[in-house]
Amino acid sequence: MTDGLHMSRRIRRTPYTSKVEQAGVRGFSVVNHTLLPKAFQPSVEEDYWHLREHVQLWDVACQRQVQIQGPDAAKLVQWMTPRDINQALVGDCFYVPIIDADAGLINDPVMLKLAEDKFWLSIADSDVLLYAMGLALGRDMDVQICEPDVSPLAIQGPKAEALLAKLFGEQVRDIGFFKFGWIKFKGTHQLIARSGFSRQGGFEIYLEGGHLGADLWDFIWHAGQTFNITPGCPNLIERIEGGLFSYGNEMSRENNPLEIGLGKFCSLDGSIDYIGRQALEKIARDGVARKIRGIMFDGEACPTCSIPWPVMVGQQQVGQITSGIWSPRLKANVGQSLIERGFWEFGQEVVVVTADGQHRQGKIVKMPMS
Amino acid sequence: MTDGLHMSRRIRRTPYTSKVEQAGVRGFSVVNHTLLPKAFQPSVEEDYWHLREHVQLWDVACQRQVQIQGPDAAKLVQWMTPRDINQALVGDCFYVPIIDADAGLINDPVMLKLAEDKFWLSIADSDVLLYAMGLALGRDMDVQICEPDVSPLAIQGPKAEALLAKLFGEQVRDIGFFKFGWIKFKGTHQLIARSGFSRQGGFEIYLEGGHLGADLWDFIWHAGQTFNITPGCPNLIERIEGGLFSYGNEMSRENNPLEIGLGKFCSLDGSIDYIGRQALEKIARDGVARKIRGIMFDGEACPTCSIPWPVMVGQQQVGQITSGIWSPRLKANVGQSLIERGFWEFGQEVVVVTADGQHRQGKIVKMPMS
Repeated sequence: MTDGLHMSRRIRRTPYTSKVEQAGVRGFSVVNHTLLPKAFQPSVEEDYWHLREHVQLWDVACQRQVQIQGPDAAKLVQWMTPRDINQALVGDCFYVPIIDADAGLINDPVMLKLAEDKFWLSIADSDVLLYAMGLALGRDMDVQICEPDVSPLAIQGPKAEALLAKLFGEQVRDIGFFKFGWIKFKGTHQLIARSGFSRQGGFEIYLEGGHLGADLWDFIWHAGQTFNITPGCPNLIERIEGGLFSYGNEMSRENNPLEIGLGKFCSLDGSIDYIGRQALEKIARDGVARKIRGIMFDGEACPTCSIPWPVMVGQQQVGQITSGIWSPRLKANVGQSLIERGFWEFGQEVVVVTADGQHRQGKIVKMPMS
Repeated sequence: MTDGLHMSRRIRRTPYTSKVEQAGVRGFSVVNHTLLPKAFQPSVEEDYWHLREHVQLWDVACQRQVQIQGPDAAKLVQWMTPRDINQALVGDCFYVPIIDADAGLINDPVMLKLAEDKFWLSIADSDVLLYAMGLALGRDMDVQICEPDVSPLAIQGPKAEALLAKLFGEQVRDIGFFKFGWIKFKGTHQLIARSGFSRQGGFEIYLEGGHLGADLWDFIWHAGQTFNITPGCPNLIERIEGGLFSYGNEMSRENNPLEIGLGKFCSLDGSIDYIGRQALEKIARDGVARKIRGIMFDGEACPTCSIPWPVMVGQQQVGQITSGIWSPRLKANVGQSLIERGFWEFGQEVVVVTADGQHRQGKIVKMPMS
């Protein structure tokens, strides 16, 4: 291609990439050195409405798994996260922030507990594999760490359950939120979790064996026709309204989990030890200086937010919008921003200065937005 | 944008991105979560000829620096690489392969020795920062590790030296190959190295302070007009002909440094210790199973290589081309491939099966190709 993203082997294709190309993908992003589809015909708005009513098939194989296995596996995973993983049972998915020694966020994966001594970390965009390898080498831990041949495929939307129950059996309906079970496909057992990067319900199949990718896509695709299935991808409108945060956009190593609203996933009572505990406990004692908030703001549809937009109260900048878009349902622009202490109450009036230079009236709102 | 790469804050802009956009960039890749320009008007072929004759300005700020500083800094860096860094003096740039416990390549940065206790690793596309942090935390080393606000800008081509001597003084000419010195710019001291991802000569300025980026670009740009300067980027034709390898394309954790021809950067006599030493010494004793080679092959200009192309001898696949393109100078297609033992001699005839289904006659050649 001559415009946009230049392809090379370094930016990895997934077992589903050929299928999304056939389905008319209009662009990609890159996550974990891997392609993530970002748009299909006809528009993000059409996709948004569709996702809320029907079912979509998403290539999210860029959610790579860091497999940690062996006698010291649980010890290593616990060292990496402030969340108490002693509470996790086999079959649980745990959202586990990973922080550095200063409590800065390194990643925010979903941990899948496959066995007492085997875990997958389904990661956002940073090389947690190398971090885990470094920790294990440094402390001489008895673990094996690898990226297995596992490629998540998300089935999202209110009709996802009916579609998957038809294909894989009624037991799919019994899987609880953030739990996983197993289905059979072409003679293999495959992990299926009730999870996904939307608020519309759905599942993720953690396909083990990339050679089965095209078949799995086709199998779901064909059965999905009567459910009005379309190809899709994480939808920016739905994600912002829903209060789902994207590592690298709303949070980075500059941020601690408490200001991102992840306090409920952090042990702060000293009952477990982990990297960054002292720093995080100090932040908890002192109180955070800013909090993540939703913002609704006026004016015509805002442009794409690739450079953060200042959020002002009078002459003072109190935040910056890192993801923003027009919501056709709320008939307003919606965004997410860290907001300074003193200005983060719901209802606070602000001004958003978008990339087109416009000053737009807005206010702080709860997420999910309604 | 509606096609190609979808922008977001997670894919970081550089201090030069606005300038390359003004200069008419036609596409990007993503390296280290950062934009890398990949094409300018009018074509890769024009850029190639221009690079061999004149001078180009490249935004290579995606070459992020991992800064390792403190009493244990040299110890940590040495632990990460098989190259003996005891040989490095302050002012040296050392190409240092980084390998895992199985001798698989994690990255191939250039190490800049800034002081006895301060190093930069100028990295290819993987999060070496997290790896180094993990190692240091695990072994409780006394180091500080960070990504400083440093954004390399490359000035490449045969006229680079004359241009930079005019701008920053004649002492620039005294900087040896893979050495660095210092220049003054707007009251700051900036590091300049004789290095870069081409075989046409040139320098890289490791600009410290992103707010100076646009000014530095303009300063060189305006003075460069009489040298026929253009905006550019690593050129695929020149890189392949020149035998420069790209991490993630020609090598990954599946490869050891010996098969990539990096043996000269590996201590194999037991005089230093590092991660992966035993594995690497065993490979050295047993001999490698494949070696990186250049291939020239016939037919019309080959398509873009985003999925590797099989390299055949008779019915046997002996390799796969991971980067390939038409060379207007050699009037042939050129590529790079790991080739199995028994088939890697120069002159070996092969068949390359390109993505368009064509079977093309080729042969193994030396790099740089002439």
